This record gives sequence, C-alpha cells and structure tokens, in this order.
Amino acid sequence: MEDLRSKLARNSGSSRIRELLHLTERPDMLSLAGGLPATEALPVDRIRSAFTAALDTRGLQYGPTEGVHDLREYVADRHGVTVGDVLITNGAQQALDLIARAVVDDGDVAVVESPAYLGASQVLQNVGASITAIASDDDGLDTRVLQEMVDRGLRPKLVYVVSNFHNPTGVTLSALRRGELAEIATRAGALLVDDDPYGELRFAGQPVPPLAAPSLVRVGTVSKVLAPGLRVGWMVGPPWLIDACVRLKQATDLHTSTLTQCVALDLLRDADWFAEHLAFIRGLYRERAHTLTGALTDRFGDRITIAPVHGGLFAWVRFADGTDADELFARAVARGVAFVPGSSFTLDGGRRDAARLCFASLPPARLVDAVDRLAARPPPPPPPPPPGGGF
Amino acid sequence: MEDLRSKLARNSGSSRIRELLHLTERPDMLSLAGGLPATEALPVDRIRSAFTAALDTRGLQYGPTEGVHDLREYVADRHGVTVGDVLITNGAQQALDLIARAVVDDGDVAVVESPAYLGASQVLQNVGASITAIASDDDGLDTRVLQEMVDRGLRPKLVYVVSNFHNPTGVTLSALRRGELAEIATRAGALLVDDDPYGELRFAGQPVPPLAAPSLVRVGTVSKVLAPGLRVGWMVGPPWLIDACVRLKQATDLHTSTLTQCVALDLLRDADWFAEHLAFIRGLYRERAHTLTGALTDRFGDRITIAPVHGGLFAWVRFADGTDADELFARAVARGVAFVPGSSFTLDGGRRDAARLCFASLPPARLVDAVDRLAARPPPPPPPPPPGGGF
Repeated sequence: MEDLRSKLARNSGSSRIRELLHLTERPDMLSLAGGLPATEALPVDRIRSAFTAALDTRGLQYGPTEGVHDLREYVADRHGVTVGDVLITNGAQQALDLIARAVVDDGDVAVVESPAYLGASQVLQNVGASITAIASDDDGLDTRVLQEMVDRGLRPKLVYVVSNFHNPTGVTLSALRRGELAEIATRAGALLVDDDPYGELRFAGQPVPPLAAPSLVRVGTVSKVLAPGLRVGWMVGPPWLIDACVRLKQATDLHTSTLTQCVALDLLRDADWFAEHLAFIRGLYRERAHTLTGALTDRFGDRITIAPVHGGLFAWVRFADGTDADELFARAVARGVAFVPGSSFTLDGGRRDAARLCFASLPPARLVDAVDRLAARPPPPPPPPPPGGGF
Repeated sequence: MEDLRSKLARNSGSSRIRELLHLTERPDMLSLAGGLPATEALPVDRIRSAFTAALDTRGLQYGPTEGVHDLREYVADRHGVTVGDVLITNGAQQALDLIARAVVDDGDVAVVESPAYLGASQVLQNVGASITAIASDDDGLDTRVLQEMVDRGLRPKLVYVVSNFHNPTGVTLSALRRGELAEIATRAGALLVDDDPYGELRFAGQPVPPLAAPSLVRVGTVSKVLAPGLRVGWMVGPPWLIDACVRLKQATDLHTSTLTQCVALDLLRDADWFAEHLAFIRGLYRERAHTLTGALTDRFGDRITIAPVHGGLFAWVRFADGTDADELFARAVARGVAFVPGSSFTLDGGRRDAARLCFASLPPARLVDAVDRLAARPPPPPPPPPPGGGF
C-alpha cells in the first residue's frame, strides 16, 4: 500500500480546523475557537415550517447540478446578474474548492491575505498552488505590497480575499483598497475571488461598496445568516467560470441537496421574516462582541490591543506584552477555554502575537467566564514532596 | 482571460449526464434516460415526520467532517466494521471523487469496466488517470482479460467496479469473478473500489456474497433506496484511506449537511419501516422491469436481446439488427422518448449497438407508451410540393 499512500503524504495539509472542531465538542470547554453561529441564531421553528411547506417529491429527487432554479434566481436578483452567472454549492467552502480546481494549475501563483482563512489556504495547497501571502492591516490587504510584487514579476492566477469582517482579523477592506485591488488583479490577468460570508452581519459602522472587477467571482453562503447544517452556498461569476465549475461539480457530487436548497430558498425570499431575523442576529452579535471585547479589556488592559469590531464573528486580539499565543493556547485548553492562535492563519507560522476569538457561539455570561479562564495566572508549581514521603 | 481558461479546456470532459438531466425535464418527454428512482418510491411522509422529530439546533450547526456519529455507526454495523472505517459523503459520487483525488496521481492507471458508469470515468479523467477499460460480459468484468493485461505489465492504482446490477449493463459480478478480481487487484497492489448503489434493489435471483479484499473500499448511498435529494452516501474502507478522504473533504465542503444525515439516519434505523419500504420498491421495480422488457420484446422481437434483469434500475438492450443506437437516440428524442446510447458509457465511443433504458422512473402504462414511441417507424418523407405550390 505504500504506493497508494505516497499521494496522501503530499495531500495531508493542515487538519487544524478539524482538530479544533473536535476540541470544541468537549462538554467542559468554553470555546472561542470555532466560527459557529450562535445556537440562538438558528431559526429552528422557521426551518421546520419551511420544510413542511417545501417538501414534495421534487425536493427528494435528483436535481440540476447548477442548483434549484428559483434559488439561483434569488441569488442572481440580489447581485443584479442573470441565473447563468450563479452556481449553488455545498456552502462557500465547496465554491472555493471548485474555483481553485477550475482555475489553478500545479505551481500557479495564488495570492491570499496574511493572515488568511485556513480553509482557503488548504484548498489552494490541495491544487498545488504556490501561495503568496500579502500582509494586511486595518484597511485589509496591503495593495501597495501586492503592487510592488506584481511590478517585480509576480503573476497570480487568482487573488483571494475576505472583503468584509475578515476571518480571522475582522477587518473590512477599505473602499480605496478595493479599487486598487481590482485594478491590480485586472492588469495582472488574475481572477479576483471575493469570499463574503460575513457581509450581512454588520452591526456597526457603514457598509463599503462591494468589490467590482471584470474578472471577479463572489462567494456567498447561508451558513452565517441561516444555518451551517444546511450546507448551502453559491458563487456568482462570469459564465466561463460557472460553466467550468458546473462540470467539475457534476463529477464531484452531482448537485447540492435539493431539500436543503428548497429550505434555504423559502427562508431567504420571505423578505420580512429574513430582515427581522438579520436584525435579531446582528443585535445578538453586537452584544456579544461588546461583552467579549469589554471583558478582554477589563482583564488584560494594555497587555492587548483589539481592532474595533463592526460585524462578523471574530475579534482579533494582539498581545502587546510578548505573550506567545501558541503557548497561551496550550495553557488555555488545560483551563477549559479554547481559541485559535494567530499562527494557524499564516503559512510560515508567524503571528504568534495574535489570537482569533469568536464571540458568537457563547452567551454573554459564558464569554465573561471564558475571558476569566483565559486571564487566569498559571497555577503555582506543586510543592516539593515531604521528606520520606510515601507512594 | 485566455490564461485562466487554459485549464478549463482540459477539464471539460463529457457533460452528457448534465445534458441528459436537462433533457428529461422537457414536459413532453418520456424519459428512460436518467437513473432516477420512481417518484412513488420517495417516502415523502416518512421524511417529513423524520424531519420534524430530528430537527434541533444540532442538525442546523456545523458538524464533524467525518459525518454524524450515529449514522457512521449505523453504516459501520451494517458492514461489520468500526466507526473509524466510515466517512459520510454527499452521495456516492462524492465518495468516488474523494477516493480518486486521494489515491490517483496524474498519469496513474485506473481500471474500469467497459461499458462503465459515466460519473466514475469523469472523476478519473479529472484527476488525470490513464483509464484502462476492461470488457465485461454477463458475469461482469472479464477477469481473464484483466489478468492478461497485468501479466503484460499493467499496474493499476485503482480498479473500479459496480458489482451489483451494473450501470449501465445491469449485470452482477459472479462469485467466481469476485474472487479472481480480488486476487488480481491484491497482487497488483491496486485499491479495489466497489460502488454498490443498487445492491439492495434485488427483486429476482440470489444475492452474491460481497467482494472482499485487503485493500477494498465500498461505496454506498441512500439515493436509490430513500431519496437522491438528500445527497447522503458513504465510503467504508481502510483507515489510511478514510483519513486521507476526510482531510480532502474538509477542504472540499467541510461536511455533508447535518440535516439530511439526521433525516437519512432516522429512516435507516427504523428497521421495520425500512424493510417494508425496501419490499415495496423492489415490488415496484420488479413490475416495471417486467413491463419494459416485455414491451420491448413485443415491439422489437428478435431485433434485440436483453440480459435478464434481476434488480437495479436499468435494462441493457442490444440491437441484433444493425441498429445504431446513437442514430436511434436522435430519432427517439424527436418522437418524445429518451434513453442513453451505449456509446455514452465507453471511452472510445464503442457499443453503438446497445442502449441503457431505465425502467424505474415511469409507471407501467407510460413505459409501454415509451416503447411504442421508440419502436415507431420514422415518418415517411413529406410528399413533393404540388406544382405551382404557394409559400
């Protein structure tokens, strides 16, 4: 079997997301690690009634690879495009996987932000991309750095960004940077991938107009606004890319569950309900974000800095006192609190000065408990054994 | 964009399945083309009650990549293995895709039957496999031919078979051939992939003991026994393969819908209901198979031969009178009946003497209508225009 396994070694990549998901299942763990929506934000009753209403044999049968037509139409309307520009996928993650497989060849350059979403880096590693990570700051990806690298000959096939409430940094790409990024990508002939799972979760500040470029694909999902368990996402892009991804998806899994597409559609196009639901979860997350960042500031004071949180699920904490987040992580897990060290989001293991904390999954009181556990001093070393001590 | 599109041209492959699915959507079409279960076989009410019972926030949240634990346990019990040997996938198709991506490198040899399931060939083409198609007969893949090729130096990484009620031929691999195939694959160091979506749909004849080999992965699905729209399937294989496929699946789409997994599990482990349901659909398909093959024999007589149909969804019709099934297909679609020409299932466009007809999707009276349309003589050429005729 050694022959068969030779490919596996090269494909192993990071399995940290998976390990983290396992970790968060420990019942005693206060987890700030996952990117899970609040349990309270999951519209169980509304989904039950959608299911009862939507369920017929059509929803149980094979369906078109492109997705349920009415759901594609809903997404197309929202983005001001036509149905042919939309492919429904198993969450945003599958959209990223299909895009990478369609566009990137072994050795091609792909640009990501640093730090970057783990799942995107894995997808790009799996297709053999040569990944160039460009530093980001409080305005998002640093376009000057990218421009310099392109000037020096970098030829990316694909540029991947999370434009709103970035994972892990929470940062939103500024309007100025959006324009510059679109220009750079266009001149370089690169496909711009705008992964936007969090854009609708803005609870403070002003929205920034979406990225626009001739060769741009937007990736969306219901995971953060309805329910991740549905596994319904989409891409909106140029027909040549949609066609290629449809062909790949056909061989990959035929199509996304007709049933969960119908459920998602029923909720999305119930405009009044959906608007109310979004207002509710934005309020929920606003409160949790303030609670978490407030508690962190209380306990850690000027040992940390936290970028202002205007939406999404994450607070990005930077330790100003030399704390190594990787080491803190090990101590924290032992004390029953989990987060994701910043180094998990970089290709070179950098950003050990930072940590991603999800404020969405825990109610406010538990968030405060979690910060208490995080801030606890390590226990004193055990006293030396008494002389002549027993077993 | 020409650069970006260069990879697409190589990846385009066949999109015939997709075109066929579109074709079957025409309301006037009597389709024997798809591999769709009967509408009457879809347990709508039972799924509705499963959903109402199973739906809680757990089913709406992110879940483990490996799949819902209890569903994995159910599948493991059925196959006499442990939970660690099971990965839940989006239908059987995703299992094939993950296995191929985990095991096959560009240029590696993969063996399939000829004719073979289109979706498997596409998966193998997408990973750059060098596909060797081995002729099959009424006992399934011809192991003597495979043995000869291995003797002459063929070194397959993977051997793919549909062991029960093959798609498209309906043939079941004989017990003798199963033993021989396992031996050949084992000696050659190849992974044996046993794709078995139809095994539970036996309505005549005796079951054959399952394939057994040290390096074997079984692929299963609820698509043919419950509902394809759920998109729930699985693979059961050695831990090294499961681990590799879990890592790939994590980057591919994180996990299969928790919701549809919970629904599938609720139905599968309701043992009495499931046994009754299987008995019902076996009876339904027995009747439809007999109706279709009977009508074909009535209308076509000794112009065709049909292998005995003991289960599954398909009848494989061979034309003994020189009929070209590709040409018949074009005429048939014009007359409002669709099937899949045999050449769609071969890599070299061979088997134009044969056709795959699905008996499952239409009620008996419509099956007879479909055969009538298929058997209709082409209309006579239009009469010459009258002299001095108008516009």
